Amino acid sequence: MKIETCFSPLLYHLYHNSDANVVVIDVLRATSAICAAFAAGAEKIIPVGTIDEAKQMKDAGYILAAERNGIVLDFADFGNSPFNFTPERVKGKTIAYSTTNGTQAIQMAKNAKRIIIGAFTNLSTVVTFLENDLSDVVILCSGWKGRINLEDTICAGALAQKLIDSGKFSTICDATNAAMDLWKTANPDLHKYIEKASHYHRLRKMILDDIIEYCHTLNCVKVLPMFENEVILDFYAKYAKNNNI
Amino acid sequence: MKIETCFSPLLYHLYHNSDANVVVIDVLRATSAICAAFAAGAEKIIPVGTIDEAKQMKDAGYILAAERNGIVLDFADFGNSPFNFTPERVKGKTIAYSTTNGTQAIQMAKNAKRIIIGAFTNLSTVVTFLENDLSDVVILCSGWKGRINLEDTICAGALAQKLIDSGKFSTICDATNAAMDLWKTANPDLHKYIEKASHYHRLRKMILDDIIEYCHTLNCVKVLPMFENEVILDFYAKYAKNNNI
Repeated sequence: MKIETCFSPLLYHLYHNSDANVVVIDVLRATSAICAAFAAGAEKIIPVGTIDEAKQMKDAGYILAAERNGIVLDFADFGNSPFNFTPERVKGKTIAYSTTNGTQAIQMAKNAKRIIIGAFTNLSTVVTFLENDLSDVVILCSGWKGRINLEDTICAGALAQKLIDSGKFSTICDATNAAMDLWKTANPDLHKYIEKASHYHRLRKMILDDIIEYCHTLNCVKVLPMFENEVILDFYAKYAKNNNI
Repeated sequence: MKIETCFSPLLYHLYHNSDANVVVIDVLRATSAICAAFAAGAEKIIPVGTIDEAKQMKDAGYILAAERNGIVLDFADFGNSPFNFTPERVKGKTIAYSTTNGTQAIQMAKNAKRIIIGAFTNLSTVVTFLENDLSDVVILCSGWKGRINLEDTICAGALAQKLIDSGKFSTICDATNAAMDLWKTANPDLHKYIEKASHYHRLRKMILDDIIEYCHTLNCVKVLPMFENEVILDFYAKYAKNNNI
């Protein structure tokens, strides 16, 4: 099985493979927050692309988590800090969710075999699922407004390295090899390394950097969110049973 | 002065800065070949985008160097191996030149302050020019049909690192930081590292890999090709005189 890595949603058309499992990564903060939401007991998440659609979902009675450029939309219930998704707020609830980069990337991948929500926080769960499913893998980094970002690239590298190490996957994709080498550079002190990421500085300026350590903590939640039929559900319970995850 | 790095021509619109010097890199093989051509005494190179335009230039009497996917176009005089550009063939001549990725990237950057042709082979000349000119720098990697490639990324990292080391440049661009870290990984044994690049394997399959060592040899030519008014000329003599290069 082969691995390819797409560093920007604007390049995704070059990587589309309808037989592949696509793992969408937006470490700061959309996919880390989605994982946190399911870990807190959320029932369902509906990713929403535009600000207008987000407003419509709020008007229709959904809990709305929505931000642009790190700032909570004024009609939303809260933004995309993983710490917002507490059991008190989200347990058993359906949440409409719209962010600058991540939710768009998720919708972009909708014609893939499966669309899996990946983060550092649920990395081992994603790896175990992919090792059992044995399909090609495309890792889609959400980036920042089309640009490459370090945190998604390094998370992609960590994921790819673990798949390669299983012996079941290989790659001839330069972006995947680059991501794995960056992961090797960052891994000895990931929290220190990520201080040079542009979004680290963007979040610090807005005093939104409280979640950075959490978002770079490996394997702290056991969730396997997937996007199917326009909604994100947690398939961990189902696949844990089927695959001994 | 700031440095930004664009890993794919398809993302260039995000990085365009009309005040910046753009360095276009296509290590395997367009920009290495352009540098080799001027080192062999070529007078002028006209980059040509499409195959139809390449044919028109041949019909108009120009020497034509042209390839697609590594294969020489059948009506061309030769392809884009740097070893084709011998003094016997090119000294004092004007060459029309069309390749899979590099010549398109050069034309894409035409609204920048200056468009400089960069490669490992002329790296120090490019660095010295940029350090003297003191404008923002955008490094444009030609990639492979829109995808990221390792050799251009690493060359971009080497260039960015040398500019940062001068103390005159800084960066908050994640792609630039990633490229510099990859350069640090590759630098101790660049020739070995590049064996994992996808284009290394593509060229080997076509028995076109004789140029790989040459294309990864630092500072073996003293040329400073720039694209101005639709043609590429070597400005080394002019800037060497003005800037003590």
